Amino acid sequence: MRLARIQYEGNPVYAVTEGDELALIEGDPFGTHTATGTRVPLDGATLLYPTTPTKIVAMAVNYRSHGDPVATPQPFLKTPSALIGPGQSIVLPPDAGRVDEEGEVVAVIGRRAKGISPEDIDAYIFGYTCGNDVSAREWQKNDVQWWRGKSSDTFAVVGPWIETELDPEAITFRARVNGETVQDAHTSELVFGIRECVSFISQVMTLEPGDLVYTGTPGTTASISAGDVVEIEVEGIGVLRNPVVDG
Amino acid sequence: MRLARIQYEGNPVYAVTEGDELALIEGDPFGTHTATGTRVPLDGATLLYPTTPTKIVAMAVNYRSHGDPVATPQPFLKTPSALIGPGQSIVLPPDAGRVDEEGEVVAVIGRRAKGISPEDIDAYIFGYTCGNDVSAREWQKNDVQWWRGKSSDTFAVVGPWIETELDPEAITFRARVNGETVQDAHTSELVFGIRECVSFISQVMTLEPGDLVYTGTPGTTASISAGDVVEIEVEGIGVLRNPVVDG
Repeated sequence: MRLARIQYEGNPVYAVTEGDELALIEGDPFGTHTATGTRVPLDGATLLYPTTPTKIVAMAVNYRSHGDPVATPQPFLKTPSALIGPGQSIVLPPDAGRVDEEGEVVAVIGRRAKGISPEDIDAYIFGYTCGNDVSAREWQKNDVQWWRGKSSDTFAVVGPWIETELDPEAITFRARVNGETVQDAHTSELVFGIRECVSFISQVMTLEPGDLVYTGTPGTTASISAGDVVEIEVEGIGVLRNPVVDG
Repeated sequence: MRLARIQYEGNPVYAVTEGDELALIEGDPFGTHTATGTRVPLDGATLLYPTTPTKIVAMAVNYRSHGDPVATPQPFLKTPSALIGPGQSIVLPPDAGRVDEEGEVVAVIGRRAKGISPEDIDAYIFGYTCGNDVSAREWQKNDVQWWRGKSSDTFAVVGPWIETELDPEAITFRARVNGETVQDAHTSELVFGIRECVSFISQVMTLEPGDLVYTGTPGTTASISAGDVVEIEVEGIGVLRNPVVDG
């Protein structure tokens, strides 16, 4: 199943894809829901970020190609006020200096999770989507913590929808800037696998339905500038495409 | 005015204090609201954390007595899933090692704020409450970021209510563990004043009504153990009291 959140008659509503259409649903998007009977063409629909999470956790240095080895998973927090969805502009803060894209696979929580083992965590993961963990490198390096380096408004990009039928250990994904591939990786290259990361986070903090876990970025990220278009493509999900503008 | 959030007939509701009673309100707690006519005694009421924020930002090293000088304000993020209110137990994670209390004054946002100057920020601050920024020192020191060091479940303590009539530059507050004063300070000792901190945060991230800004902790914090009782007292507000238990 592919779950999307769209703007419909002025309001955000959830929908599932059916061929080239979106079937609107009502009820719990992560649990029991039913079709409203309304269908709209996928082409031309205004897709929003696909969940409204209470929190976003992201993994630092989780591909060997991206940083030095670490002994335990290394999460950090991003705040939901930074969220944007497909097609929305990534806004470069005027005084931030270099800003990079970071292509990632993002896990979406489906059930409240606390203290869940990696073996049991699949029941708490609803699905996966594409993510861009936009990062201001100078702020990330020079501030005590990564608050604005990772959570300035528009720095948490996700979408276009959530795919529930993916094997988290067998996902190929890539990032492109203006059509040129800048990152290309597979989740088998993760230092700590997706199940292990989500389980690790759940040991200390309660994860809620709709919460997001960015699972780490591979290789060398690319700096982005106003006028660029960034695409994060996750095979089996789709493409998350965003223009970049100056703030 | 003092705004509280309480458990009433099984549901969380907002109320304002009137003498030794709480007058329940309906509408926007940070804007236009009216009394429902229902009043309950303050004594015996179950006070909850007084807002349900979309995010919590906290200030690192913002008293000279607590750390080395910094050139700019140094915020970090705490996640709302860590919130507890008055009387609720601070739970020590089994493998965290040393955990400290951190007594703080907490600013509560009343209006959506982005790019607001320190001179104009008062119109966006609804009031102030007491906070305990519980901190696992080994995790804080050894992890890449402070995610679990500052945001394990129960590590964001606030309450008992929000006082709207305080001068942020003239607040005396202290922390006690088992009745012994361990921190005692005045907001005139802040490196970056409360208005400057909230303004600084608003330059990069949109603050929403109910969001919280922990403004920094002074001096030397105390480690806490199961069986302890921690009190954060802010003059002009009240006392935030929480027991400590092992997880």
